[in-house]
Amino acid sequence: MHIKEWGETGFIHYLQQQFSVNSPLVGIGDDCAVIPMTKDMAWLVTTDALIEGVHFLKEKIGASQLGYKTIAVNVSDIAAMGGEPRYAFLSIALPKNTDCNWLNQLVQGMKEACQLWNISLLGGDTVGSKNDLFLNITLIGTAHPQKIKYRHQAQVGDMICLTNDVGNAGGGLKALQNQLSLNADVQYLIDAHFHPQPSTEQGKWLASHSAVHAMMDISDGLDCDLRRLIKASQCGAMIEITQLPISKALLQVSQEQHWVAFDIALTGGEDYCLLLTIAQDQLQSLQSSFHAIFGKPLYAIGQIIDLPEQLIYQLDGKPKKMHLRPFDHFQSI
Amino acid sequence: MHIKEWGETGFIHYLQQQFSVNSPLVGIGDDCAVIPMTKDMAWLVTTDALIEGVHFLKEKIGASQLGYKTIAVNVSDIAAMGGEPRYAFLSIALPKNTDCNWLNQLVQGMKEACQLWNISLLGGDTVGSKNDLFLNITLIGTAHPQKIKYRHQAQVGDMICLTNDVGNAGGGLKALQNQLSLNADVQYLIDAHFHPQPSTEQGKWLASHSAVHAMMDISDGLDCDLRRLIKASQCGAMIEITQLPISKALLQVSQEQHWVAFDIALTGGEDYCLLLTIAQDQLQSLQSSFHAIFGKPLYAIGQIIDLPEQLIYQLDGKPKKMHLRPFDHFQSI
Repeated sequence: MHIKEWGETGFIHYLQQQFSVNSPLVGIGDDCAVIPMTKDMAWLVTTDALIEGVHFLKEKIGASQLGYKTIAVNVSDIAAMGGEPRYAFLSIALPKNTDCNWLNQLVQGMKEACQLWNISLLGGDTVGSKNDLFLNITLIGTAHPQKIKYRHQAQVGDMICLTNDVGNAGGGLKALQNQLSLNADVQYLIDAHFHPQPSTEQGKWLASHSAVHAMMDISDGLDCDLRRLIKASQCGAMIEITQLPISKALLQVSQEQHWVAFDIALTGGEDYCLLLTIAQDQLQSLQSSFHAIFGKPLYAIGQIIDLPEQLIYQLDGKPKKMHLRPFDHFQSI
Repeated sequence: MHIKEWGETGFIHYLQQQFSVNSPLVGIGDDCAVIPMTKDMAWLVTTDALIEGVHFLKEKIGASQLGYKTIAVNVSDIAAMGGEPRYAFLSIALPKNTDCNWLNQLVQGMKEACQLWNISLLGGDTVGSKNDLFLNITLIGTAHPQKIKYRHQAQVGDMICLTNDVGNAGGGLKALQNQLSLNADVQYLIDAHFHPQPSTEQGKWLASHSAVHAMMDISDGLDCDLRRLIKASQCGAMIEITQLPISKALLQVSQEQHWVAFDIALTGGEDYCLLLTIAQDQLQSLQSSFHAIFGKPLYAIGQIIDLPEQLIYQLDGKPKKMHLRPFDHFQSI
């Protein structure tokens, strides 16, 4: 059997079994591992690899954008658990013909991201590669142990919320793949793909509220990541498609290109916003405060239901069968 | 200009400049980064990547050996600063045709190593790769902040020591490359290449002695790594070649194959023993205690001298010009 058949979920599940750990340590399975330090402080650790030809094409993404994005995707994992990013470690495997100007721009993009989030890059490893460029960031963050949010804590009746539009980055990737002519809307989507903006401040603020139960970031598409959340929480979810926050740009470009915007919003990936569940009776109050503080809505898109691992889509209150392609890193190579 | 011309040292120096940090944090440039936590505890963080075709050939190394080695090389970095390994994070990029049995053995090798050093593997990232297999471990360890050893603290007059033979792993690689017939000596060298045994207990013990000034592990060959140590310490070194600890196996195979054992001992790489400097007047006492505790010698091979960045080799007390090939990851791809 090959890893392609086993699949990413199967492999991660196997690793979880092989490397189980005891509380209060939290190991494989959430956005970050958790290592308690003091009664007021825990460490969050996440690691994300970006591989040439899989996560990016060198000829499509600017070096500086790639550097920024490599840091940002890890920052999003720290944000997902309500933490603050602190220390980064970079492993980079470079083919020998890597241009030094390109490399300089890559590093400057990382530096920009590190400065933006006040991250110290403290070390790493620099090695050669026969073929492809590999980038790996391990990011350490801190959080209050009592305020960390996990993906397994959704409760039946919770409202399911998002901190941002979904589908822009997926639309941007599609625009690049289809070589669409640039206009303001197309550019907006491409920017979302190249320059994700993790919900760091929102994550910390949400984590400080006990009414927020489960939280994670969306990296592989809302459909895929919500399935992970309900699996971890042993519950189900009902999503009202008309409530999905979709940008005017994505709607406009989808109309022009005959794309199904809902599909892109559900499966596009790389949104790097937060997916969370909130006690129903606290929703309105949290939405109001969120809007007052961040100047943007906290979008409620559905509800946690008592049907384990069932993800049900509704369109205007009526069940709607969706034909979405499940995401798997080993299928998409 | 390409990275091959820039070289690994040039690139690391550039990264150091771009990502400088303030004391008490210790960033790029030593075996581990240091993050002080409490007055009794600091975190050590190291990361090492192993790339198919560069660090290993899948058809030459057993999957379980590769798994073990991936952990062990990081453990060696923690040992080099006198710490105790604790938490590991694995990033793995797999080509889609990766065989699941092979992968299972890889994971079992990692698990064996984690159990050996009491390491909890807490997380990571699993992604696809177009061509090569990529493995990255970030390892977090702990140490007493006052007992951490750095490579920049060698003092003129210090004796230069090793915790083990050098050249076995280099000889093992050469044996594999030349497809030597297996006998006990060849097997011994190949085992050293596949199954490094970091000096963890020795590292902790040595770190607890103030007479030990500078310490690091040898990963890229004694010549290369000693040059790094004297550069960091702004001093020079004199090595007496006849004092180099070389195993009987390496001497025997070298004689049979007409290899120069000294060259392999100086440049072979992947020894993963410790290179350290000790106050001259404390050498004998430390050597005796070391032998009593660990049942093996602490080898004195030379002395730190007052000639910045000069590495001088002697043979029976007379200067000896060596023609060694400097190690560079970007040259060796």
